[in-house]
Amino acid sequence: MPCCFEEREHLTDEFKVKYNRFQRVPFIHDNDFILSESVAILRYISRQYGLGEEWYPRGSKEQALIDEYLEWHHLNTRLHLTIKQYAWIDPTTGEKPDLNQLETWKKSVHTTMDKIEELWLKNHKYICGDTMTVADLFAACEIEQPRMTGFDPIKGRFKLESWLNSVRNQLDPVYSEAHLFVNKIAAIQEKSKL
Amino acid sequence: MPCCFEEREHLTDEFKVKYNRFQRVPFIHDNDFILSESVAILRYISRQYGLGEEWYPRGSKEQALIDEYLEWHHLNTRLHLTIKQYAWIDPTTGEKPDLNQLETWKKSVHTTMDKIEELWLKNHKYICGDTMTVADLFAACEIEQPRMTGFDPIKGRFKLESWLNSVRNQLDPVYSEAHLFVNKIAAIQEKSKL
Repeated sequence: MPCCFEEREHLTDEFKVKYNRFQRVPFIHDNDFILSESVAILRYISRQYGLGEEWYPRGSKEQALIDEYLEWHHLNTRLHLTIKQYAWIDPTTGEKPDLNQLETWKKSVHTTMDKIEELWLKNHKYICGDTMTVADLFAACEIEQPRMTGFDPIKGRFKLESWLNSVRNQLDPVYSEAHLFVNKIAAIQEKSKL
Repeated sequence: MPCCFEEREHLTDEFKVKYNRFQRVPFIHDNDFILSESVAILRYISRQYGLGEEWYPRGSKEQALIDEYLEWHHLNTRLHLTIKQYAWIDPTTGEKPDLNQLETWKKSVHTTMDKIEELWLKNHKYICGDTMTVADLFAACEIEQPRMTGFDPIKGRFKLESWLNSVRNQLDPVYSEAHLFVNKIAAIQEKSKL
């Protein structure tokens, strides 16, 4: 179904009733079955339609270790890198952020980056082992977000930079296409620093 | 394995290396397989050892709708009712909370309670339908937490109160045993109001 967020279609009553009661993306309509929440969707698609074994393994223990990251992700990577960012930057108002809030947020991003290096990337090349899985996709997509504020959380972190470049390179050109909007805003931020 | 949080055993290096690198609960050791994150653990136990069909169904669509709540839970019920509570109440310091922060937190709890009523309990008796599932357990355990601060988030919310009483009654005496600590602190708070 078409959905244009610039026009705030998702906030209408029609959208809520017909498409998705959460009024957010992502969501799917699989015939008459409606589902929200990216991790729940990933797992449903994997069961119903198959997903490469390398992305989300069917083996119980292997899958559990991917799930461990996907669940940790919400209150760590996602909360600190994306959700909190929007608490002080609302692109619809153009308001300047509170400088104290900005510093607190940057600190929480750095703490999260430390945890990702220490808990997930310490002993292997990717988040859940030595090959790329959906866990890397979920993590990378959040870590890209803060660049829209002019703050790059991986700057000076060589391990994380090497990991992120590896994810980007393996998934291009699709990855760059998916990040067109993020890259466009990040480029504007970089230009404004000159 | 024994673990006494009052003695902060989980913060020792030995605990980190031998038991759980996240230094948090819950976690399991299934022989030599170590796993953290409650939702990942639930799913693993369900696959490996079976879990009543009524708690976490095996049917793909039925399971997906439970997963939808379990994923939504992190950044809504859990974040606003438990995680944010600990941001201003640290039982080890006994410091009084900042009154502005307290009001902001109560507002975010009420917004979350509104969402639970509107998105999850509007059309049926339990979170994911007309029977109790793991989604109700995850939700109820977080909704119990704020009472430790003297603030009961379900007060005056008859739909939520009826749902929570139903969960409590069906699961007692195990439910009350699991909430012994919460109920003890909540009783102290209530007494201090008199």
